[in-house]
Amino acid sequence: MSDTFVVVGGDAAGMSAASKAKRDDPDLEVVVFEKGEWVSYGACGLPYYVKGEIQSLEALVSVTPEEFREERDIDLRTGHEVVAIDPDEQTVTAEGDAGTATESYDSLLLATGAEAVEPPIDGIDREGVYTLGSMSDGKELREYVARARDGEGFQQPDRGPACRYLEDCTGPVAVVGGGYVGIEMAEALAANGFEVHLFQRGERLLKGFSEATSEAVAEHLHERDVAVHLGSEVRGFEGANAVEAVVTADERVDVEMALLGTGVRPRTELAEDAGVELGPTGAVATDPYRETSVDDVYAAGDCAEAIHTVTGEPAYVPLALTANRHGRAVGQTVAGRPAAGGAVAGTAAIKAFDVEAARTGVLDHDEARAAGFDPVGETIDAKSRAGYYPEGGTVTVTLTADRDTGRLLGASLVSEYGEGAVHRSHAVVAALEEGATVCDLENYDLAYAPPFNSTWDPVLVAAKVLSGKLR
Amino acid sequence: MSDTFVVVGGDAAGMSAASKAKRDDPDLEVVVFEKGEWVSYGACGLPYYVKGEIQSLEALVSVTPEEFREERDIDLRTGHEVVAIDPDEQTVTAEGDAGTATESYDSLLLATGAEAVEPPIDGIDREGVYTLGSMSDGKELREYVARARDGEGFQQPDRGPACRYLEDCTGPVAVVGGGYVGIEMAEALAANGFEVHLFQRGERLLKGFSEATSEAVAEHLHERDVAVHLGSEVRGFEGANAVEAVVTADERVDVEMALLGTGVRPRTELAEDAGVELGPTGAVATDPYRETSVDDVYAAGDCAEAIHTVTGEPAYVPLALTANRHGRAVGQTVAGRPAAGGAVAGTAAIKAFDVEAARTGVLDHDEARAAGFDPVGETIDAKSRAGYYPEGGTVTVTLTADRDTGRLLGASLVSEYGEGAVHRSHAVVAALEEGATVCDLENYDLAYAPPFNSTWDPVLVAAKVLSGKLR
Repeated sequence: MSDTFVVVGGDAAGMSAASKAKRDDPDLEVVVFEKGEWVSYGACGLPYYVKGEIQSLEALVSVTPEEFREERDIDLRTGHEVVAIDPDEQTVTAEGDAGTATESYDSLLLATGAEAVEPPIDGIDREGVYTLGSMSDGKELREYVARARDGEGFQQPDRGPACRYLEDCTGPVAVVGGGYVGIEMAEALAANGFEVHLFQRGERLLKGFSEATSEAVAEHLHERDVAVHLGSEVRGFEGANAVEAVVTADERVDVEMALLGTGVRPRTELAEDAGVELGPTGAVATDPYRETSVDDVYAAGDCAEAIHTVTGEPAYVPLALTANRHGRAVGQTVAGRPAAGGAVAGTAAIKAFDVEAARTGVLDHDEARAAGFDPVGETIDAKSRAGYYPEGGTVTVTLTADRDTGRLLGASLVSEYGEGAVHRSHAVVAALEEGATVCDLENYDLAYAPPFNSTWDPVLVAAKVLSGKLR
Repeated sequence: MSDTFVVVGGDAAGMSAASKAKRDDPDLEVVVFEKGEWVSYGACGLPYYVKGEIQSLEALVSVTPEEFREERDIDLRTGHEVVAIDPDEQTVTAEGDAGTATESYDSLLLATGAEAVEPPIDGIDREGVYTLGSMSDGKELREYVARARDGEGFQQPDRGPACRYLEDCTGPVAVVGGGYVGIEMAEALAANGFEVHLFQRGERLLKGFSEATSEAVAEHLHERDVAVHLGSEVRGFEGANAVEAVVTADERVDVEMALLGTGVRPRTELAEDAGVELGPTGAVATDPYRETSVDDVYAAGDCAEAIHTVTGEPAYVPLALTANRHGRAVGQTVAGRPAAGGAVAGTAAIKAFDVEAARTGVLDHDEARAAGFDPVGETIDAKSRAGYYPEGGTVTVTLTADRDTGRLLGASLVSEYGEGAVHRSHAVVAALEEGATVCDLENYDLAYAPPFNSTWDPVLVAAKVLSGKLR
């Protein structure tokens, strides 16, 4: 009798694992329990759906449930929530419309994902307060936008117009949180004519990026008429029934809607109930092969932690590529050919209107010191193309390195959209992955031609300058 | 008395060395002999000047002679050709308008650059046959273009129009050679309304790139009405006085002008006369610090060879970044802090109308085998942005690796212009520099967001597929 691989959760990590396992070992029985109706969807695309650049939720689905079932021969059970795991008996219990079922497993993957954090804000349950974690969240938000635009029907907005350019300016609305989701949603809402107020608890947006990047993005949001409120912790949503105002320590701003983009936390209840250990980050702890403290139980994706490329310590970085990569690695492992799937460098990218930015590694000096490094940083501006080339802009690059060893620790890059901050970050990510020094990076033979950079790519310019500082 | 550093040749390598040496050791006497009038110019920008996108030759100069003399305190002697080196006496002899002068050196850098290869073509000395190696070549070509456009004065052309879109279509003209210069000049000429015939001796353009890249570029040139003649070795230029036709084994094509883009060779006469050894590539041989076989005599830039990152063997890759990097390293070395400046990976990039491409490392399987590898290659097409994202195109990635070790050997990427083939190549260059394997690359935590890639960047997709093939 063939082995059974059971997967809990049908998004990136879960479906990557299921697909890879079945492809590598067609004899394996692969069962996936997904409590919702959507599987394998690109949650990262939701802001663009709300914005109106993507016309259907279905477009975000890379593989449909039918395709998983029929073409990939995966026993995918949507509408089934796993409510218990018995590691001794190696069974899971799932509840669905048709009742409760128990399934035995030889290997089990926990891919339960993450859920939106709901910060302690008075009135958070009022009508008109949204989050953006799931497909149904996206649907609700898009419907809200359509209604607010006077029921005129929802059309593709012009690219990036801000409130003042639209006759039917609506809102105001609040976005709480200045991370990826907050900023992408600020863009999505502003492009639809809303007056957008973005509230950020800390003193700068995108706190994982460099200060230079945060400032460039904030300045650009300001240019696009997004009101950025820094150092503004939201304490309450006021209103008779629905939200009517956002209240911080300093101000009260009338709004008709509020979107919470205040981060996520791992869904670990099921793992904890089964006796699976959590790590120092609060997410499920695993070994390099994603196996948890319980034999034959793996965890991958937004519910699990991973080892950080630079610090070598557990980190919780719930992003799509890691979920895909680690899910795929688990699939390969349970199919008989163990794969580790690598570490996480904390790399992330964002587009905000007409600016793009990326970050990777360890940038924060306190964090670097805590990991045993003596951090030195440098920020440079460089032309995105040859100085004489008729187009182009500026790329601002921040690099951080360890003073003693010269080892590269992290980077943050920002440029106009299309000027390559994000793709240029690839050079630094690779350098981090290989434990390279700033001097190594300085000598990389990166591609050059006038339409793409100056002879020294901005990344190399930053390495040259930082390298000089290390001596 | 302070030491004297003499530099022969005032372009990228020479001026980088002079500037760095003087900056690191202000007491050093730095003397640069340049036989022409231009120094530190971006020859890579000449096609864009001829095209009309850059309005003056001066725009290509990053630092003027006056700035070198006055701000950097470098004794720059333009119009001075070094005619002899005496390594025993440690002197150079230079001829200028004011006669012959002899200068002593403690350290000497040969940065004599490269010159256009003139292939054995009958009638190559006819009027109307151009090369594009120097600023004066660029000036002549731009004047030719202006004259051909009916003396209407030379204006900025529309971006990328091909012949059929212009009423005043002129030409036809020939471009001989399907490398960087040939293709960039085909674009420059076509954009100015010329009917362009591009002759390539071999069976594909850009022979250092992958076949997939060559084909994509050839197809795009065809779309832009450039007549690409492959397998067409030019044997003669016919004409009463000026060139009137190009003759190959198979055809005779009427043209009014011909541009030779048939590669360059190192200028080594001066080095050879001084007893400096050349390497197997025919360029000046150096140690990792760019010192030649003669004590205190260095060579860098387009006259010198360098060690190849992948093969570990001497290679001749005369490109701008290497010249800058190695020149700078020599400057640092002679100032007292030895710097090696790194190897060359053979990385190159090109824009051809609305297509961009990059290559790095060893792609050719015969070349890989000669270096002791067992090459395996794979080519994939991947979306440049998330599938559901409203914009984007395709990135075609070719990767080559060694079967036994999995070590990455080379890559070639091509995409629509702006879709990131060139900047994405940075990831592979870094991997090559660090001797990484395809499996390493597959697990890189590269930046992802829907406007920039699918969850797996095209480079990662290629690594995944090639990695599967290696097992």
